[in-house]
Amino acid sequence: MKICRINTQTQEYSFESVPEAWQHLGGRGLLARILVDEVDATCEPLGPRNKLIFAPGLLVGHMLSSLDRISIGGKSPLTGGIKEANAGGRTGLQLAQLGIHALILEDQPQSEGWWTIHLSKAGVRFEDASHLFGLGVFESATQLAQEFGTEAAIALIGPGGEMGLASAGIQNNDKDGLPARIAARGGLGAVMGSKHIKAIVIDAADGEKPPIADLPAFRAAQKTYSKALTSHPQVKTYADYGTAAMTNMTNHFGALPTRNFSSGEFEAAEKISGEYMRDLLMARGGESETTHACMAGCAIRCSNNYGGADGKSLVSPLEYETIGLMGSNLGIDNLDTVAQMNWAVNDLGLDSIEVGAALGVAADAGLLEWGDGARALELIAEIRAGTPLGRILGSGATTTGRVLGVERVPAAKGQAISAYDPRAIKGTGVTYATSPQGADHTAGLTIRAQVDHTKPEGQAALSRGAQINMAGYDTLGACIFAGFGFAAAPPETIASLLNARYGWEVGNDILQVLGRETLELEREFNRRAGFTAAHDRLPEWLSREALPPTGAVFDVSEDDLDSVFNW
Amino acid sequence: MKICRINTQTQEYSFESVPEAWQHLGGRGLLARILVDEVDATCEPLGPRNKLIFAPGLLVGHMLSSLDRISIGGKSPLTGGIKEANAGGRTGLQLAQLGIHALILEDQPQSEGWWTIHLSKAGVRFEDASHLFGLGVFESATQLAQEFGTEAAIALIGPGGEMGLASAGIQNNDKDGLPARIAARGGLGAVMGSKHIKAIVIDAADGEKPPIADLPAFRAAQKTYSKALTSHPQVKTYADYGTAAMTNMTNHFGALPTRNFSSGEFEAAEKISGEYMRDLLMARGGESETTHACMAGCAIRCSNNYGGADGKSLVSPLEYETIGLMGSNLGIDNLDTVAQMNWAVNDLGLDSIEVGAALGVAADAGLLEWGDGARALELIAEIRAGTPLGRILGSGATTTGRVLGVERVPAAKGQAISAYDPRAIKGTGVTYATSPQGADHTAGLTIRAQVDHTKPEGQAALSRGAQINMAGYDTLGACIFAGFGFAAAPPETIASLLNARYGWEVGNDILQVLGRETLELEREFNRRAGFTAAHDRLPEWLSREALPPTGAVFDVSEDDLDSVFNW
Repeated sequence: MKICRINTQTQEYSFESVPEAWQHLGGRGLLARILVDEVDATCEPLGPRNKLIFAPGLLVGHMLSSLDRISIGGKSPLTGGIKEANAGGRTGLQLAQLGIHALILEDQPQSEGWWTIHLSKAGVRFEDASHLFGLGVFESATQLAQEFGTEAAIALIGPGGEMGLASAGIQNNDKDGLPARIAARGGLGAVMGSKHIKAIVIDAADGEKPPIADLPAFRAAQKTYSKALTSHPQVKTYADYGTAAMTNMTNHFGALPTRNFSSGEFEAAEKISGEYMRDLLMARGGESETTHACMAGCAIRCSNNYGGADGKSLVSPLEYETIGLMGSNLGIDNLDTVAQMNWAVNDLGLDSIEVGAALGVAADAGLLEWGDGARALELIAEIRAGTPLGRILGSGATTTGRVLGVERVPAAKGQAISAYDPRAIKGTGVTYATSPQGADHTAGLTIRAQVDHTKPEGQAALSRGAQINMAGYDTLGACIFAGFGFAAAPPETIASLLNARYGWEVGNDILQVLGRETLELEREFNRRAGFTAAHDRLPEWLSREALPPTGAVFDVSEDDLDSVFNW
Repeated sequence: MKICRINTQTQEYSFESVPEAWQHLGGRGLLARILVDEVDATCEPLGPRNKLIFAPGLLVGHMLSSLDRISIGGKSPLTGGIKEANAGGRTGLQLAQLGIHALILEDQPQSEGWWTIHLSKAGVRFEDASHLFGLGVFESATQLAQEFGTEAAIALIGPGGEMGLASAGIQNNDKDGLPARIAARGGLGAVMGSKHIKAIVIDAADGEKPPIADLPAFRAAQKTYSKALTSHPQVKTYADYGTAAMTNMTNHFGALPTRNFSSGEFEAAEKISGEYMRDLLMARGGESETTHACMAGCAIRCSNNYGGADGKSLVSPLEYETIGLMGSNLGIDNLDTVAQMNWAVNDLGLDSIEVGAALGVAADAGLLEWGDGARALELIAEIRAGTPLGRILGSGATTTGRVLGVERVPAAKGQAISAYDPRAIKGTGVTYATSPQGADHTAGLTIRAQVDHTKPEGQAALSRGAQINMAGYDTLGACIFAGFGFAAAPPETIASLLNARYGWEVGNDILQVLGRETLELEREFNRRAGFTAAHDRLPEWLSREALPPTGAVFDVSEDDLDSVFNW
């Protein structure tokens, strides 16, 4: 394994051996380690001193189900703190197959041009990408596939990243070549844009699977894991309905973001539910698929392909978070409209959660009537056009609220809250408030715990456990749903996989060990960036405005919030 | 002396005795004490938990020259930290003559209406101000004078404050009734707007001068002070040229903000200099005045009335900071244009420093050609119209840069740098970086020190002394220029005035004692709000981009910055 370091100004690169302190980490944990070691936490996120880092998780490279994710990180232009965003698709797999433990982009060019970085066994080369500048993600990926072949992994930005918008993510192509696996959150697309890199093409054609220290033991552990995963009842649900299975569940809990988080219950929730979508897609046929894998080898296949009335794909995938933030959150009950909006932000390379939340805030400011999908599409077109209003929205929910004078901004540490209202699912509210990443359900979702989610007591402990586990999974390269498999498998499964892969002797608590180390590193970065306990809070209005229909407010005590990282 | 506390939701009020811990403070120091004691530093600045506080300085109420200033404060919507902004005019004097040590506005209405608060010996009453909503400051003040008489003090907001813009200040009428003495910085006008208070009318017609414990001693100290002040050579300069005397001086130091701080030297500095303006106004005559007092009793009379070619007033006053930020900073060399822009932002009730800096950033983003005054006026009209672009600009330089994607934002703690480039006047740069107020020359200007301003060594100590003194003067209610008098007067003068006024026995170091206490309180508030040493920094580009013609970068060490408050 090597560290590949590329200077985007000089276009020089090197392959370096992995420092000892970086060897036991991968993915999110490794990003945190590198950022603490190499990046001044007070640096300008879009300046030359920030770095953009790609790190496959520790178990990436073997096509284990739901275990080939890529973590991308740097200092966030959205939150001003540490940022890791991960995605499925090919990027993690092919980087690992090139033997790359982490890819680090440094510095930034002082000239105007745009570049594609091509990475293969032959090394690194910069190719002029001027012809791709301004093109959407989908057209860019098509052209890149023509130039560099259809089998390579591609990580790329859209116009949003080029424009430096703080809601811009980095798209990765999936196993079928579609560039829709976005490392969405925190504005990393803008960081890539600040370095004038339009795309990174990773061609592992001459690569190989990472070495395995004890192949029989690895295969045995893999088998145990796969069996546990595929026999888990929840996996069937996700295969059938995708993440959209959550719509009815959150609505039932009164936690479905509705009209800029002014209600937790949407009267038309049924029409944006996973069940409704499945029936619709099955009836429509054509390019519609209700179940689809983003990574080779995935047994869950939670993804989908949303076809329109004519059977032609409108967007793929259509996920619950998008449905929550761009559907009910805007009072929109038409999935076709949500699908069109989703495609448009995907093509811009933007985070649909952040943009959906920003549109909700804009609606509160009077720029959009609830339920007016045509106007919502117009506003997304403003982002593409780079108008002042478009740039406001593309800068995310917090900036939108600040500029338009709206206090009801659903965000923490400057990042939009995802589709679980923190008043009704308080453990997730604790995660939003305290995660070093800013508000993010993938940093520690608690909705499946068998507790009263509206009671403030005990939520800090619940969030603590979830945050540790998720930081651990993100360090392994595991999808959030891989957890179903590991939770059902024997307790030594993760350790067995790691020990067999690396020849280590880690214990059964390795997931938590990695998770805690990751969180501590992230908090250290944020501490240096100027974050304190005062930032581990939700906005005041969430403790003031009661959420219909439960009437819940966010009332987890500050002492509890401050206890989350005491372990 | 009493504390007047008004609840803007219930419209109830009370007059309370002054708590002991608040008695030895006034102005800026008292604001800090009250904010630490009563306001949760993590509160939403435009929410019901913030308070808006008016506190005359300790020596206010006697018409001593340059000593009747009003301090206004609260949690800043611009910086997120503590905020004090002070102004001349009548407000301080009449509050003191009503025996009010501090006026505290609390809570906020949940209904739509707008209100004028009328305060007199008879108590407090709320008057409907719906008819003033949307009106500019000047028309509003005219109507208020018709309703409440021409002799009252008025503190009011313009459309900017109504819109909640973070660059909105609070205008105060001067001794002649003109509402152009703005407590400009940090968005306190938005805080007033969030409480739906359009204006506060303070009528001290039945009031009286504050009691003096030892009148002969007071008169003697006053005489000493006045003599020292009026015989100081600098006072003559300010009487002749106003603060615009600074243009040539800063340009000479290579510190005049030019084209969004890309140069410290403006080729047309002469045309925006105090000397040029004086000649012009004297030639034009009419309503032009080269010397004018904002407060009764002022011996300096640094203010002016800028008349156009027809002799009719274009704006009053036209100050150096406005000339720097709206003139050279935008490449505009026409004082008539700067005067028109200044009037327009005054009428909106906005901080001309913050808006000028935001326009400079917008120009870097391509929205304005350097020197295009007509376009600059159009952009100010966008603010008035409340368009998305207008709201961006009205939100200040930092938000403008964030939204428009410009890194070169001259700001610290989210507040725009004033008209002294911190690379060329490094002591003032230290003040910008470390002041609890955010970037603000009035928190500790060092340009008159006889040092090499481009050398990094020694600047922290210089700033420390200036910050302590200014915090002390702001606690007394002294204008920044009163310092000329006190510096030239015998060292016991301030103590003599305070001891005679209050019957105290404070020592000759009282200015520094008050200054240090004030700064410590402010830093405590900011600490609770989440500020750390990481926030006591200037933006990265100021240490990277060399400033023509000196080639200076900001290179005061972080250790030095962190030492400023070690006393």
